[in-house]
Amino acid sequence: MEYTFSDKISSLQPSVIREILKFTSEPGMISFAAGNPAPEAFPVEDVRRLTQEILENTPILALQYSVTEGYPPLREALSAMAKKRYGAGRDFDQLLVVSGAQQGIDLAARVLLNEGDTVICEDPSFIGSLNAFRSYNAKLAGVPMDGDGMNIDALEKTLRENPKAKFIYTIPNFQNPSGITMSLQKRKEVYRLARQYGVLILEDNPYGELRWAGEDVPAIKSLDEDGIVIYCGSFSKVLSPGVRVGYVVAPAPIVAKMTVAKQCNDVHTTILSQLICHRFITECDLDGHIAGLRKIYAKKSALMMEHMDREFSKNVSHTVPEGGLFLWCTLPQGSDMMGFCRTAVEQKVAVVPGSAFTPDESVPSYSFRMNFSTPTDEQIVEGVRKLGRLTHEMFD
Amino acid sequence: MEYTFSDKISSLQPSVIREILKFTSEPGMISFAAGNPAPEAFPVEDVRRLTQEILENTPILALQYSVTEGYPPLREALSAMAKKRYGAGRDFDQLLVVSGAQQGIDLAARVLLNEGDTVICEDPSFIGSLNAFRSYNAKLAGVPMDGDGMNIDALEKTLRENPKAKFIYTIPNFQNPSGITMSLQKRKEVYRLARQYGVLILEDNPYGELRWAGEDVPAIKSLDEDGIVIYCGSFSKVLSPGVRVGYVVAPAPIVAKMTVAKQCNDVHTTILSQLICHRFITECDLDGHIAGLRKIYAKKSALMMEHMDREFSKNVSHTVPEGGLFLWCTLPQGSDMMGFCRTAVEQKVAVVPGSAFTPDESVPSYSFRMNFSTPTDEQIVEGVRKLGRLTHEMFD
Repeated sequence: MEYTFSDKISSLQPSVIREILKFTSEPGMISFAAGNPAPEAFPVEDVRRLTQEILENTPILALQYSVTEGYPPLREALSAMAKKRYGAGRDFDQLLVVSGAQQGIDLAARVLLNEGDTVICEDPSFIGSLNAFRSYNAKLAGVPMDGDGMNIDALEKTLRENPKAKFIYTIPNFQNPSGITMSLQKRKEVYRLARQYGVLILEDNPYGELRWAGEDVPAIKSLDEDGIVIYCGSFSKVLSPGVRVGYVVAPAPIVAKMTVAKQCNDVHTTILSQLICHRFITECDLDGHIAGLRKIYAKKSALMMEHMDREFSKNVSHTVPEGGLFLWCTLPQGSDMMGFCRTAVEQKVAVVPGSAFTPDESVPSYSFRMNFSTPTDEQIVEGVRKLGRLTHEMFD
Repeated sequence: MEYTFSDKISSLQPSVIREILKFTSEPGMISFAAGNPAPEAFPVEDVRRLTQEILENTPILALQYSVTEGYPPLREALSAMAKKRYGAGRDFDQLLVVSGAQQGIDLAARVLLNEGDTVICEDPSFIGSLNAFRSYNAKLAGVPMDGDGMNIDALEKTLRENPKAKFIYTIPNFQNPSGITMSLQKRKEVYRLARQYGVLILEDNPYGELRWAGEDVPAIKSLDEDGIVIYCGSFSKVLSPGVRVGYVVAPAPIVAKMTVAKQCNDVHTTILSQLICHRFITECDLDGHIAGLRKIYAKKSALMMEHMDREFSKNVSHTVPEGGLFLWCTLPQGSDMMGFCRTAVEQKVAVVPGSAFTPDESVPSYSFRMNFSTPTDEQIVEGVRKLGRLTHEMFD
């Protein structure tokens, strides 16, 4: 039988990253292509103990159906945490527990976007979110990035030219893939422009806690006096991505619609995961754990950058992030970026081609993304050495 | 700010069932409104032991990102199980692990339906699925049920009248809400008509293992020589709904598109849940466990029906299912069904109004759904007594 798929899905291809990740399990492959937390970043002992206690004391709660909005004590604890740590949440806001921040992004798109509506996003941006928007047949309008976040003139031009824009999607901290952090000044400008043009802001903050240098910058949500910001948080980088728990803080009417959509989508988020997250943030030493994570990633990123600066051709530049999991490398204008990535994989080093992250895939990209959290230190040294040799061969 | 939601979501209301479930936590309420497994149906000891071993032996696997398709050993085990137990799966089929069968239904709709397309469904049918279809702006065309499943003449008429029909949605075993099982003869007829009219079949089988009387009927998927059936299975009723694990067996091109949509939706299903399910079906006594479940539900359903037949007005009829979790009660034509349900809740007994399950909500319903798996035996006796008194007052 010939299958006919919905217009919104039929153009969508599998994520380039996830397709590349399949190669990365080949023997001998050094992968800088993932976005996985370092294995040593998981609080294994805490999770073991909490899970055992949960299944000992409240097994039926952990196995039975639960409510769509999320386990009420977790919602309370997260609301308090989001307020305290990020200034996120006012009287008009509600909190929804979701199955990873990806579901938060997807549900926000589902309740807000008609086919043909526009999403304004950073260029480059996270492929998982871009594909979620594409899967609702949204038009993506990319705004180029400066070293301190979206170019504001370009953002205003994009807002002017796209009257069907529904929201601005941004990852303000240690952006994926660029590693760039948006300055406070720019956060205020983005907020002001969103309000002026009557569009919402979808603020995605999975990496915010992973800062190893510089000063915290307030979340855009903390500026939200007008109820125009949908804030997505995640346990993926501070506890575990495998548990699939994230949360959304947004004005009550938006959360109400997202809750209805979530009922249709997966009824509720795995309750054992929610119970583990609840006890982890209320009983364990969250600050101490996060301090440990920062140390791990500070060391790994420094190691990678130190070796890149030594081994790479001087014609290849990279961002110097203050946190997160990624570096963004840029080859000379006009380079054969895909050829570079392909040759690297043949030589058993995987990076992600920058074209995976461009809102408009037809625009050429001369960049690629490097991840330092997943590989071991030895792999970082060895992989950067191989890539370095290749940069000299191709770009000197 | 005035929020503008997508057309597809803005008409959708919160599930009546889940709204009623909120009342059911009021003190003293006897709820026949849920669809939860009985607390004694959970293999708590097995889950405790397996979880502890998983977190002891493979903690990083249990906490790290995983692949969208599902944990490979679980996919293998489920493929074998689906083939052996339900005859589901041929060479052209693939298996996708999903976050509960609800996600399977939702993703199938997402990849198949354009706005305005038609879904043909049983009337009444499961509200969670109907709302998922509605959330893509699909038109629902209901087909009335006989005692052995969809009325075939009505199905053919509906197929003829709806050239934009994309698939037929059916719960062939112990249907929710009616408790009706589709006969083999009718399964063959439905399959034949689907093939003839070039539409797919979405077969939802969450309750299939919960048979306490009669003989198993082969899954429609077992007839699928043409690659036109999408089969959804679930761990919710045989292991735990809280783990949120289900699976889809469908032709490879459909599973490929659903996998892309799942990447956008929640990246992957909670991996700890998948590991628990994998070890449960490969290492534990699944047949013995299911035999135990059948005993529990046989007893509870018999208790409820015995008391209903004694206490209810003779003007109220009910289905006599051979498995599952639900009975479907029908009041005399023209009765004030909503008044009955409202008065029952005031008297602290909750049932679900039949109108929750009608594809066309404007058509009057004289039925309501009763669940016997969630209440205790004492609650069944006491709740049926109260409802019985009300039926005599209102319908004698």
